[in-house]
Amino acid sequence: MTFQTPKGTRDWPPEEMRKLQFVTDTLRRVFEKYGFQSIDTPAFESFDVLAAKGGAGEAIKEEIYYFKDKSDREIGLRFDLTVPLARFIINNPNIPKPFKRYAIGKAWRYDNPQAQRYREFWMADVDIVGSNSLMADAECLSVAVECMRSLGFKKFYIRVNNRKFLESLFMAKGIQKDRIVDLFRTIDKLDKLGEEGVLKELSEKGFDGKNIITLINGGYKKEYSKVEGALELEELMKLAKVVGIGKNLKIDLSLVRGLEYYTGPVFEVFAGGTVSCGGGGRYDRLIKNLGGPDLPATGISFGLDRLVNIMTDSKMFRLNPKTICMVAPVNDRSRKEALKIVNALRDEGVNCDSDVSGKKLGKLLEYASSLSIPYAIIVGEKELKKKAVVLRNMKNGKERTVKIKDLAGMLNSGDS
Amino acid sequence: MTFQTPKGTRDWPPEEMRKLQFVTDTLRRVFEKYGFQSIDTPAFESFDVLAAKGGAGEAIKEEIYYFKDKSDREIGLRFDLTVPLARFIINNPNIPKPFKRYAIGKAWRYDNPQAQRYREFWMADVDIVGSNSLMADAECLSVAVECMRSLGFKKFYIRVNNRKFLESLFMAKGIQKDRIVDLFRTIDKLDKLGEEGVLKELSEKGFDGKNIITLINGGYKKEYSKVEGALELEELMKLAKVVGIGKNLKIDLSLVRGLEYYTGPVFEVFAGGTVSCGGGGRYDRLIKNLGGPDLPATGISFGLDRLVNIMTDSKMFRLNPKTICMVAPVNDRSRKEALKIVNALRDEGVNCDSDVSGKKLGKLLEYASSLSIPYAIIVGEKELKKKAVVLRNMKNGKERTVKIKDLAGMLNSGDS
Repeated sequence: MTFQTPKGTRDWPPEEMRKLQFVTDTLRRVFEKYGFQSIDTPAFESFDVLAAKGGAGEAIKEEIYYFKDKSDREIGLRFDLTVPLARFIINNPNIPKPFKRYAIGKAWRYDNPQAQRYREFWMADVDIVGSNSLMADAECLSVAVECMRSLGFKKFYIRVNNRKFLESLFMAKGIQKDRIVDLFRTIDKLDKLGEEGVLKELSEKGFDGKNIITLINGGYKKEYSKVEGALELEELMKLAKVVGIGKNLKIDLSLVRGLEYYTGPVFEVFAGGTVSCGGGGRYDRLIKNLGGPDLPATGISFGLDRLVNIMTDSKMFRLNPKTICMVAPVNDRSRKEALKIVNALRDEGVNCDSDVSGKKLGKLLEYASSLSIPYAIIVGEKELKKKAVVLRNMKNGKERTVKIKDLAGMLNSGDS
Repeated sequence: MTFQTPKGTRDWPPEEMRKLQFVTDTLRRVFEKYGFQSIDTPAFESFDVLAAKGGAGEAIKEEIYYFKDKSDREIGLRFDLTVPLARFIINNPNIPKPFKRYAIGKAWRYDNPQAQRYREFWMADVDIVGSNSLMADAECLSVAVECMRSLGFKKFYIRVNNRKFLESLFMAKGIQKDRIVDLFRTIDKLDKLGEEGVLKELSEKGFDGKNIITLINGGYKKEYSKVEGALELEELMKLAKVVGIGKNLKIDLSLVRGLEYYTGPVFEVFAGGTVSCGGGGRYDRLIKNLGGPDLPATGISFGLDRLVNIMTDSKMFRLNPKTICMVAPVNDRSRKEALKIVNALRDEGVNCDSDVSGKKLGKLLEYASSLSIPYAIIVGEKELKKKAVVLRNMKNGKERTVKIKDLAGMLNSGDS
């Protein structure tokens, strides 16, 4: 028998989980500050719902966890939080629009596991359904910027482009409309293949590679304003300035994002350098394509595994210990009093641990150290007679006698 | 195409999700107050891990979501959070013991869906691994009591029994050891079948039904103290009294809990009456049976769908709206200033919504009402000249003019 997690998945042990919780707590606080409401949907969906996204159809079976339940219903683990949202919207037609929803949860893809890429991963999404205004896109960009700031990122930025704009530019350069999705797919590989590689693939596909590269590098600025989508991009940047996030955005004509269902603005969030930790854009046709009403939508999504990894590598986590003190009886005779002190401290809101396995004092203090608990409260008969205990700072080993009634106040104020 | 969630699963729309979040936030705070640490494990496990619990083996395939991945690995969605914990413990041998962990997440069972019983459900578990002391069981009971109190329950209680004790009693009455599991299975149906039904099934199985019913109803008190496990139960009740939860516990000899892997104390949490919302007990053999070290363990588990349902039925939720105000421009000319106000309020920590779809004032106020947002900030040119806005109480329709600089303070203090 194997005790490893299934291939491509992982456990979050306590020290990693605290990081994930810091990230999810922070994002949730920001999402709620922006008026987004939380929903939760099942881990799996009917396969036909999953297959409808962007017309991928049956082919998506290869990329997801697909199975049949015991009544032969085809189901699959969700591969993102957007398709479940679209299905939810269709299923709840009376929900007030625009519907601003956030969701934090797992999704699953049957990728080949790579470094920092898991088959099970945590996501946090904000989306606005039912507004075709650029104000909705700007709101998603705002909330994303605020998330990055609140997590402590300094050099982050969001690349912004517009699908309509890029499509018009390409068409103005004589590229046929029905070839543009294929063109997008190659351009999307810029970060992976580099300019050389993309140039090569474009030529293989029969495109004028040099012309296209010049274009997405901003080589035809004069022609920009004439094409569809140019105004949209300009307007979005103006809105961004009004809400104070202009400096965090960078127009990048090479950004296409592979997913076929984007219809307008597209975004990608970079923690710094070229490390992407989120992205999104406008997808006005998804809900209709799924068989629902004609509702525009836009959103942005964070990859939490990626965020935690980047923040760990950049030493950004400054997490205080959750458990403040270990209450340690010096022997069995003071055990009962120790339990009462634990009880009283917890009543006062102090996160507090106690001996639950009958360890001797020395072992218990070692155990508290191994859990990085900052204080120990040593309960001995001598001090108990004076209604006091010994408070030990586990870092420097300093001890002092403290009245029991003063403990909670001291530990809560950090004055200990 | 169906837009329903897959059979036996459900969505949590915003108003339900807020209840779930209240419950998970409350439990998490209590768990951390008691020094439990959080871990997360994958939604699915290798099938051989899932099959090992309590020796259910292959038969469990019928009760879980079982499937093969694309490399023909047998996997299954976890059906609880205990088996993943046991697997985690084996996989992380150096984690300090006792390991006090909590986990909040979903599990899946291929039950026949019934009222209030889902195939996908939320659980919250606390467990202590590596202590065979009753102090660990008492700690789990304490944390469970505190959870129920913190959720606002008044009449809850925890039924407590001891498997060893009951087993000894039965053996003292001449029942063969190898028939006791079967006996437990029938007694476990007391709530479902009633005494009549259980009596009938016991007779069918060849037991002396009347004698057994008398026994679990407390009919042979004098004989109790002589058998194994009696002291354990007594000691646990004493410890419970020390930590102030004695009144919340009820010894109930009829409580066996069906799962075969319990080895000592067993618990079941009742919100009041006979509605169970959680349970647990000591399972000293599970980790070893799974192929790991000989580590004792005890824990307790809450069913969150059940808790949310009970609390809804009992009208226990008093949730404040998450979004405090809607900033509403009277026309397009005040839109830019409105965005700046939204921005400033969010910077001051006010959860604040804004127009993202170009609604006219009347429609926007209707929309705010439909979201139960308590205040609207109406931004008009006339007031803007005086650096002020109109603050509207959405409940009673009262309006007053307020300086922009005073808004955040007023909304944050609730003095509005």
